Amino acid sequence: MKVVYKVWIDQNGKAFGDGPYDLLKRVEKTKSLHQAALQMGMSYSKAWRLIRTIEERLGFAILERKVGGSSGGGSQLTPGARNLMKDYKQFRNDIKKAIEKIYQRHFDS
Amino acid sequence: MKVVYKVWIDQNGKAFGDGPYDLLKRVEKTKSLHQAALQMGMSYSKAWRLIRTIEERLGFAILERKVGGSSGGGSQLTPGARNLMKDYKQFRNDIKKAIEKIYQRHFDS
Repeated sequence: MKVVYKVWIDQNGKAFGDGPYDLLKRVEKTKSLHQAALQMGMSYSKAWRLIRTIEERLGFAILERKVGGSSGGGSQLTPGARNLMKDYKQFRNDIKKAIEKIYQRHFDS
Repeated sequence: MKVVYKVWIDQNGKAFGDGPYDLLKRVEKTKSLHQAALQMGMSYSKAWRLIRTIEERLGFAILERKVGGSSGGGSQLTPGARNLMKDYKQFRNDIKKAIEKIYQRHFDS
């Protein structure tokens, strides 16, 4: 027996959660929304719509497009997105620890 | 902005969560799985399958059928089900408090 949960931030609908966190983490590493989407088995258009939805719901930009340059452009996270990622990661870790502890207190003793 | 979550107990699949808790609470009040299902807009056969799935996954009986008598029979919770309900309610309350607190710590300050 174990506890299972899903948690996300809502602002007029799902605004941010584990899936978006994972996608943005991959954008940070690859500097490319194309690559990040590919790694997650997601179409580029779906990834792009997801980014737009998050930006609309949270009310700030999360991706900057870099045009041209030696690498031929790409995407990078805005400072707002970096802050969000940092906060979300800590939030998610705290949630995980708290839920496991509460589960053990009531069901696993 | 707010935090949203779903949490459940898993044992080879979903074994117990808010929906089953609600259904059993109504069985406790109405002494009838028929009535409980009706109140939740659920077919009797679906409610019955849900009960069987919970019993199989948790490994103990949760409903006793009372046959006959002046009320014409009905269903009531087993002692195991009552314990489960009590533990689950406390678990759920603790989870709610912890998640709200963690959310406020990271996002609402």
